[in-house]
Amino acid sequence: MVKTDSLPGPLCGCLWDAAPETLAPLLAGVPVDLVEWRMDLSSSQPLREALLGALKEIESTRRRPLLVTNRPVRQGGRFEGSEARRIDLLRCAVSAGAEWVDLEEDVPPSVVREFRSLGAGVVISHHDFGGTPPDSEIRGILERMAAKEPDVLKFASLARSAADPLRLLAWIAGSEARQDLPLIAFCMGTLGRWSRLVSIILGSPWTYVQLPGHGEAAPGQFEAEEARRLLGALGG
Amino acid sequence: MVKTDSLPGPLCGCLWDAAPETLAPLLAGVPVDLVEWRMDLSSSQPLREALLGALKEIESTRRRPLLVTNRPVRQGGRFEGSEARRIDLLRCAVSAGAEWVDLEEDVPPSVVREFRSLGAGVVISHHDFGGTPPDSEIRGILERMAAKEPDVLKFASLARSAADPLRLLAWIAGSEARQDLPLIAFCMGTLGRWSRLVSIILGSPWTYVQLPGHGEAAPGQFEAEEARRLLGALGG
Repeated sequence: MVKTDSLPGPLCGCLWDAAPETLAPLLAGVPVDLVEWRMDLSSSQPLREALLGALKEIESTRRRPLLVTNRPVRQGGRFEGSEARRIDLLRCAVSAGAEWVDLEEDVPPSVVREFRSLGAGVVISHHDFGGTPPDSEIRGILERMAAKEPDVLKFASLARSAADPLRLLAWIAGSEARQDLPLIAFCMGTLGRWSRLVSIILGSPWTYVQLPGHGEAAPGQFEAEEARRLLGALGG
Repeated sequence: MVKTDSLPGPLCGCLWDAAPETLAPLLAGVPVDLVEWRMDLSSSQPLREALLGALKEIESTRRRPLLVTNRPVRQGGRFEGSEARRIDLLRCAVSAGAEWVDLEEDVPPSVVREFRSLGAGVVISHHDFGGTPPDSEIRGILERMAAKEPDVLKFASLARSAADPLRLLAWIAGSEARQDLPLIAFCMGTLGRWSRLVSIILGSPWTYVQLPGHGEAAPGQFEAEEARRLLGALGG
């Protein structure tokens, strides 16, 4: 199990369009604390295979920790293959050295247990690109996610009103529904942009940012250096 | 009555230690939208009189709007004279051209009416330097303040937990208790620092910042230029 005091953070850069030969320098030198590889956004299977190959050859002591995500279409991602194939790609990445894996809230508990037994830290995530559900629904989702016994919970939803980010962030401050597990929670979109940074001030372990020279992987992401500067200015 | 669409904003610089001869250039050139003169923090009566004299001589078309505040000790300020003298100083400042006046929630409605009849915009304010009260208490205070029919409400309280600023900011998003009046609401102190900026994103008309070369008038204030830069980065 990954201990809370060994969590990386606070900036997780999103990698989704890298060429395989850029992986090693990128993982060694980017100004973030963790890199998320969105396998599902890597456009082709050959590219994914080449990146997995490149990952195997990277010396683990000289790079940032890596979080692998292979988001299915049902959670707003682009992976369209079978569930078995989707999980297998994540398994390959963890075998190649990825320290963290992002799994969706609907995976069976056995999959969570398997990845933890492989030594990976597990993020259980929920995404809602249509809006932010009512508090009672958020509570139910967090409780279901926490019951799978991951290391970190993630809840990201679109802000449709100014009040949505305030409601969602409140779950970071309260620990009951999430059973004391670290919670990454923020709103996507223009109305929720600020919540990507304030979540860190409230206690989320990390937030998702653009890597230098790469675009945003989800609506509203800050660029890494800007996020670090803004966090420094806001927090003290 | 001051109309909402003519509110200044979003930065109100706090003036509390100016020399009289610096008032004119300061009100003409500072990078804020409104200047609050904290009469109670001006250290002596002769200084206040000199500043009032200087204010009378400033051509009104070439300066920032001025908000005058003469905070009594009971609300965390430093004015120790009689209530009649306190209000009279504000009256003098409005006669000299100040466009806005800040009155505490416990002033009689007749005082609010008088200042509005003089053409000033009225802010009714509540301060709590000990903590942020429970929601039911906040509601009662906002309702009492709104009943006095000012132009703007202000509620500032110390954050003692990470959740306090989230709770307080929620009153900006909801309009019922404040009877649709514009609401300035934020938490003071380190835990609430971010709320001084996010309040603007949520719809507060202005926030209080340090003027260049002056210190903070309350715990947690941003410097004016930094606040404008951060707001630009956070809002879009």
